[in-house]
Amino acid sequence: MRILLIGAHGTIGQAIQTELSPRHEIITAGRNSGEVRVDLKDFASVQAMYAQVGAVDAVIAAAGNLHFGPLADMTPELMGIGIADKLMGQVNLVLAGQHVLNDGGSFTLTSGVLSHDPIVYGSSGSMVNAGIDGFVIGAAIELARGLRINAISPTVLTESLSGYGPYFRGFASVDAAKVALAFSKSVEGQQTGKIYHVQ
Amino acid sequence: MRILLIGAHGTIGQAIQTELSPRHEIITAGRNSGEVRVDLKDFASVQAMYAQVGAVDAVIAAAGNLHFGPLADMTPELMGIGIADKLMGQVNLVLAGQHVLNDGGSFTLTSGVLSHDPIVYGSSGSMVNAGIDGFVIGAAIELARGLRINAISPTVLTESLSGYGPYFRGFASVDAAKVALAFSKSVEGQQTGKIYHVQ
Ligand SMILES: NC(=O)c1ccc[n+]([C@@H]2O[C@H](COP(=O)([O-])OP(=O)(O)OC[C@H]3O[C@@H](n4cnc5c(N)ncnc54)[C@H](OP(=O)(O)O)[C@@H]3O)[C@@H](O)[C@H]2O)c1
Ligand SMILES: NC(=O)c1ccc[n+]([C@@H]2O[C@H](COP(=O)([O-])OP(=O)(O)OC[C@H]3O[C@@H](n4cnc5c(N)ncnc54)[C@H](OP(=O)(O)O)[C@@H]3O)[C@@H](O)[C@H]2O)c1
Repeated sequence: MRILLIGAHGTIGQAIQTELSPRHEIITAGRNSGEVRVDLKDFASVQAMYAQVGAVDAVIAAAGNLHFGPLADMTPELMGIGIADKLMGQVNLVLAGQHVLNDGGSFTLTSGVLSHDPIVYGSSGSMVNAGIDGFVIGAAIELARGLRINAISPTVLTESLSGYGPYFRGFASVDAAKVALAFSKSVEGQQTGKIYHVQ
Repeated sequence: MRILLIGAHGTIGQAIQTELSPRHEIITAGRNSGEVRVDLKDFASVQAMYAQVGAVDAVIAAAGNLHFGPLADMTPELMGIGIADKLMGQVNLVLAGQHVLNDGGSFTLTSGVLSHDPIVYGSSGSMVNAGIDGFVIGAAIELARGLRINAISPTVLTESLSGYGPYFRGFASVDAAKVALAFSKSVEGQQTGKIYHVQ
C-alpha cells in the first residue's frame, strides 16, 4: 500500500514507520519535518498536501496539539487550540481526503485515553479525544467507495512518561511499538468505525 | 434552588420548566426568547448573562445548533457551526460559570445519542455530542467549591419526530417529559461527571 503518515517524526509516528515500512511505501508528512509539509489546522494546506502526494491507499494521523491546564484558567481561546489542531486538523484530513483516496482506502486518526479516563488539567483533551472518536463512528457509516475510518486511542506512552508522567499517575503506560500495532490493524485489516483502545 | 435555564422555550427546555418550576425558581434564557437574552457562541454574551442574573445554584443548557448533512458535502465551516454553538457554547457556560455559581452548584449540559449511535448526515452531531460528554467527565474532576457537572444524552424526542423522524428510522423515541426527569436527577441529585442516557 501507499500510506501517507502525518506526524511521522513524532513519538507514535516513528513507531508506526517501524511497523509499516517493511511492508508498505510510507510518505512522511509533518509541520516542520517529513517529505511533505502540512499544517492540519489549515484546510488549504491539507488539500495542497493531497494534491502534492497523489493517490494513496491509507492516511494516518499521528499528530495533534491541545492545551493542558487547570479548568479554572481555561478560556475559549485555550480550548480552541485543541479544537483547531487535534480535532478539526484530523477532521480536515478526512473531509478533504474522502474525495481523493483510492477506493477501499482508510483513515486512521489518533485520539487518546482522556476521552473516558480523565486527568486533572485534561478537560480539553477529554473533549477533543471524545470528539474525534465520535466523528469516527459518525463518518464511518457515510464514507463512500469502500473507504474506512478508525481511531487509535492510546493511554500514555512509556516513551512519553518523562514529560507527561506526573499528570498520569496510576496509569499503566504502553510502549509505542504496541500502539503501532493498532495502526497496523486499522490499515491492514478491514474494520471500520472502530475505536482501538491501546493500553 | 435558583436555576438558570438556557433554551427554556425549546422542546426540551419547556419540559424542564414543567418538571422543575413547581419546586424551584427558574430564570429563562435564550437567543430570542426568555427573560434573559444570550448567545452561547459569544463568551462575552455568556459573561454578561451571568452578571445580569446574579448568583444561581444550577445552570441548565438545553440549547445548541449544529449542521446535519452528507459527509461528502461537509466543510470545515459546516463542522464549525456545531463546534461554535452546541459544543463551545455549552463549554463557555461552564468556563464562565465556574467562577460565579453558588458553592455546590451544578451545570447540566445536553449532548445526544449520536455520540455512540450514529445516523447518516450526523457526523457533526456525533463529533459534537461526544465532545460534550468528554468535556463533562474531564471538567467534573476539576470543578472547585463542590460544583458538579453532568450531561443529558437523549435519543430523538417523540415531540421532534415530525421534523427529525426520517433521519432516525428505527430509533425508539422518548417523551420530553422523561428527558426532563434526567435534568431533575442531575440538578436535584448529587452525582457528578455522569452522562445520563435517556431513551
Ligand atoms: N505520547 C503519548 O503519550 C500520547 C498518548 C495518547 C495520545 N497521544 C496523541 O498522539 C498524537 C501524537 O502524539 P506524539 O506523542 O507522537 O506527538 P509528538 O511526538 O509531539 O509528534 C507529533 C507529530 O505531529 C506533527 N504535527 C503536530 N501538529 C501538527 C499539525 N498541526 N499539522 C501537521 N503535523 C503536525 C509534528 O510535526 P513536526 O514535528 O514537524 O512539528 C510531529 O511529527 C497526538 O495527537 C497526541 O495527543 C499521545
Ligand atoms: N429534540 C430532540 O429530539 C433532541 C434529541 C437529542 C438532543 N437534542 C439536543 O437538545 C438541545 C435542545 O434541543 P431542542 O429540540 O429542545 O431544541 P429547540 O426546540 O430548537 O430549542 C432550542 C432552544 O435553545 C435556544 N438556543 C439555541 N441556540 C442558542 C444559542 N446559541 N444561545 C442561546 N440559546 C440558544 C433557542 O432559543 P431561541 O428559540 O430564543 O432562539 C431555543 O430556546 C439541542 O442541543 C439538541 O441538539 C435534541
